[in-house]
Amino acid sequence: MRLATLRDGSPDGRLVVVSRDGSHGIDARAAAPNLRAALDDWQRVAPSLEQLALALDNGSPAAFALDPARLAAPLPRAAEFVDGSAYLNHVRLVRRARNAAPPATLETDPLVYQGGSSDMLGPRDPFKLIDASFGLDFEAELAVVLADTPQGTRAEDAGTFVRLLVCLNDWTYRNLVPDELAKGFGFFCSKPATAFAPFAVTPDELGDAWQGGRLAGSMRVTLDGALVGDPETASEMHFSFFQLIEHICKTRRFGAGTILGSGTISNAAPERGISCLQERRARETISHGSPQTPFLGQGASVHIEFQLPGGQAPFGDIEEQVT
Amino acid sequence: MRLATLRDGSPDGRLVVVSRDGSHGIDARAAAPNLRAALDDWQRVAPSLEQLALALDNGSPAAFALDPARLAAPLPRAAEFVDGSAYLNHVRLVRRARNAAPPATLETDPLVYQGGSSDMLGPRDPFKLIDASFGLDFEAELAVVLADTPQGTRAEDAGTFVRLLVCLNDWTYRNLVPDELAKGFGFFCSKPATAFAPFAVTPDELGDAWQGGRLAGSMRVTLDGALVGDPETASEMHFSFFQLIEHICKTRRFGAGTILGSGTISNAAPERGISCLQERRARETISHGSPQTPFLGQGASVHIEFQLPGGQAPFGDIEEQVT
Repeated sequence: MRLATLRDGSPDGRLVVVSRDGSHGIDARAAAPNLRAALDDWQRVAPSLEQLALALDNGSPAAFALDPARLAAPLPRAAEFVDGSAYLNHVRLVRRARNAAPPATLETDPLVYQGGSSDMLGPRDPFKLIDASFGLDFEAELAVVLADTPQGTRAEDAGTFVRLLVCLNDWTYRNLVPDELAKGFGFFCSKPATAFAPFAVTPDELGDAWQGGRLAGSMRVTLDGALVGDPETASEMHFSFFQLIEHICKTRRFGAGTILGSGTISNAAPERGISCLQERRARETISHGSPQTPFLGQGASVHIEFQLPGGQAPFGDIEEQVT
Repeated sequence: MRLATLRDGSPDGRLVVVSRDGSHGIDARAAAPNLRAALDDWQRVAPSLEQLALALDNGSPAAFALDPARLAAPLPRAAEFVDGSAYLNHVRLVRRARNAAPPATLETDPLVYQGGSSDMLGPRDPFKLIDASFGLDFEAELAVVLADTPQGTRAEDAGTFVRLLVCLNDWTYRNLVPDELAKGFGFFCSKPATAFAPFAVTPDELGDAWQGGRLAGSMRVTLDGALVGDPETASEMHFSFFQLIEHICKTRRFGAGTILGSGTISNAAPERGISCLQERRARETISHGSPQTPFLGQGASVHIEFQLPGGQAPFGDIEEQVT
């Protein structure tokens, strides 16, 4: 199943079931008013949503054409947003550029931070750059949406708590990061609102590409019309989503509708390009002593599309302009 | 107005308007199903809640006796939880104990971290200590509950976005903090679920004690039956709630139902005692070279009650056992 959220003036929007090709939707209000409510009551709601998906496939007259500009994030308000940094090449590269060693526990203890969750941006929402000196960057990521997940959940049991997968752009103000990390309390103002691809997808929809808590495919990132990266998403994800779930559940539980992100997709091979400008700047610093690529300015356009090995784009695409 | 949330099996519980003395409640379902929904639609809902408060004061037969053990946190699932560290004595004391200088920007740039928001504990919920070696500690704090608050909100306008005040115990696993801070991404596993006093209170209910974004009174903390602290809450709050709101809104907006905490209440005068064990341990380290007070173990009981200058306890009290 693929699900989307239509803007209707309410804070959580209206739930829509989406056709296989992403072109059409069908109103799911009879099953649940919004995705948040559906996740609260998934066992009861999911069968009704499956029925709607079937009706859509069979050419239901209630289907309507989907305009991505009218879609919000699948969860405009998530229960929580936790973001990992599971692609270790990213951590190593960035630290190497500033002559810092990666943390000693890099390969055994996942890096995660708690992000903002009450204002998620839709797939076509322009990003309002409030100050160019903040150093705006994108970060293309995959994420899972959790069911109610108990404290103490182990990686081997974590799969049952993954309700949906989503794709996101974790907008970051790079120049605000160093001072915030120096204060020791983690990211805060350096992480403005996060943007999401239009469709949330159930794991069964992804077939063999979803395996062991990793999703195989490539994250195609285009900046101002030019492809800048298509890193592979499974092979270099050091901690699987299942391992990340075990880590975050060590001392507390999470409510339904919590989003858990992978961190920037990153491959060691430079020819796979980037899914954030910071990596290109890190490579430039390592080669030439300083970064050459500027951060994003007014008018920049970022396009992000995850593709399965067969070329399908299950989450639809993010296409955003900086204004 | 004072509001509470009765457990009814639903994730957000049921909204109740509470009498002045905290002894009785009246069902507010006709106005809004839960506090979260009320905050989403405050302009429309608040007058109905005021009517119920009036009916309660006039001895409505619909009133029922409130049992704190049946109450959840006012917001069992908050939109976000952001926690500050506005009492600088706490920061200075803790850093001095480990021979570290406070951050250079301590007095000008607030410390805040993003906390978990989908699992808030009620005022009588036992705290399940999963591992005594984690070093369990309490932190008594005040907090504000926000309306939809736009990016760019300034301190001088912040008062209009404060819907409610609450009192909380920010449970912390002290021994997990150093490794997490060393990783640079802030607190995560070191912050299990947070517990709340039963009543959320509108600012007008607090009279002159609520002034300029600070609430005057004392935070009385009792451990295993002995008073360990009654620090004054207004005079040493370096950043007011209004200044904290300006800080967190620098690069993003916040949805209705976001909780913003003050950080541990702390006074420079040792005779005002503590509102977290870490401060006592810091004083012991400064005086004797090492801490003597152990962290909390099985059976410990923590009682937290904020009192206004006149002695009233507008938020009710937190009384929790470690199990």
